[in-house]
Amino acid sequence: MTERITLVKIGGNVIDNPAALRRFLADFASIGGAKILVHGGGKLATRLAERLEMKVRMVDGRRITDKGTLDVVTMVYAGLVNKQVVAGLQAAGCNALGLTGADGNIVTARRRPAEPVDFGFVGDIERVDTELLGRLLEASIVPVFPAIMHDGRGTLLNCNADSVASALAVAAARIAPTDLVFCFEKCGVLHDPEDDSSVIGEITAATFAQLKAAGIVSKGMLPKIENALQAVAQGVRSVTIKHSDNLLNDTGTVIRNA
Amino acid sequence: MTERITLVKIGGNVIDNPAALRRFLADFASIGGAKILVHGGGKLATRLAERLEMKVRMVDGRRITDKGTLDVVTMVYAGLVNKQVVAGLQAAGCNALGLTGADGNIVTARRRPAEPVDFGFVGDIERVDTELLGRLLEASIVPVFPAIMHDGRGTLLNCNADSVASALAVAAARIAPTDLVFCFEKCGVLHDPEDDSSVIGEITAATFAQLKAAGIVSKGMLPKIENALQAVAQGVRSVTIKHSDNLLNDTGTVIRNA
Repeated sequence: MTERITLVKIGGNVIDNPAALRRFLADFASIGGAKILVHGGGKLATRLAERLEMKVRMVDGRRITDKGTLDVVTMVYAGLVNKQVVAGLQAAGCNALGLTGADGNIVTARRRPAEPVDFGFVGDIERVDTELLGRLLEASIVPVFPAIMHDGRGTLLNCNADSVASALAVAAARIAPTDLVFCFEKCGVLHDPEDDSSVIGEITAATFAQLKAAGIVSKGMLPKIENALQAVAQGVRSVTIKHSDNLLNDTGTVIRNA
Repeated sequence: MTERITLVKIGGNVIDNPAALRRFLADFASIGGAKILVHGGGKLATRLAERLEMKVRMVDGRRITDKGTLDVVTMVYAGLVNKQVVAGLQAAGCNALGLTGADGNIVTARRRPAEPVDFGFVGDIERVDTELLGRLLEASIVPVFPAIMHDGRGTLLNCNADSVASALAVAAARIAPTDLVFCFEKCGVLHDPEDDSSVIGEITAATFAQLKAAGIVSKGMLPKIENALQAVAQGVRSVTIKHSDNLLNDTGTVIRNA
């Protein structure tokens, strides 16, 4: 019986730094109980696209994932980064197994509508095969997901890694109590963005409204916290936002249901 | 209970041709019983390395897999090709799941000795986790392997796809009777390399010695047949060498134990 699940999401600040990645993987491997890792791709995909002299098309500050870009993110996220992370975890004694949404058809995504802006091969998670996820965790396998999903009709789709982590955590919560951890480059949500020691210990829907009204939470943090509040509203036990160096420490901002 | 296993290996002639790949995946999806797919990478890795202006170092006509080359083959084989094949099979109703050796620690490889020539990050299969392979097949999952394995200590290794197919078939034969199929660009082993209709129907160790002595088997085919004879000597029921368009037809050269 899976008794609890820890789902950790890491982004570019860990992926792009070999020493930080090594430390993180050792920490992650030592977490007890069932666990899942979701990773972004960092700057490697952008650097590879630059070296291939691919044109990056942006609309409203967001990148368009054309076929060439999809191929690059599939190579970098699902290939290089995913397999290096999996091999690194195996070396640390953690039985990792990399999965895009297409593998075992574990996650399907829906391509975003082409109106008003066609962002290309970009999708949002539609369905998670909780039964397969549960069987993997029961077998003490640690699924490692890049944010590459598929539509079930042969097309891969690039997804937002934060949203993938939330959707997987909501699905995991149907298997066992699930705690979601977002690792990033700050120690948590800060009262004062200039002061790393001003971490807000806990946020609920009610206190978030106050923080937002008082203008305390910075613009970049808003979608992260909204995403986290949605996850706890949908059954995830807690969401913690913390620095990737502090995975095993009791620090960061915990977001709970009211 | 898994009653029989079909393991198919495809190479560049299928991978590099989108129409041939689509046909092949539809054919492969319709094979009954438990099955496994092993794929090479085709020319995509070479083309990507060229676009990145990476220097290719050759010794004795063989490419050295330095760190940059390893990253490229990991991106292309384990990322782009593997995920496109898996998504294509899912669309064809086949529950494919991509696995490098590192995933679930299903296959470990040993890096080739650095003497007399250091070929870099190249390995030979050391151990297959038959128990995990059996559990996946039992769950009606179709494992799809690129020839990227790991040493269990955090290092990925590029392997020969034909050898990977043989080693996996030998391991699969411990689970259930296993037939191995090598798809390539010819209709089988030919009596006359210029005549596509001169397919040799069956080869055994005894007839192979005669064919070799008579100079009938071409140089490029020798390692393929030796590889196949080793596989049947180690318990694989049959090895068939055929054209990838003929997957479902009863054609090609069948290699059996004596």
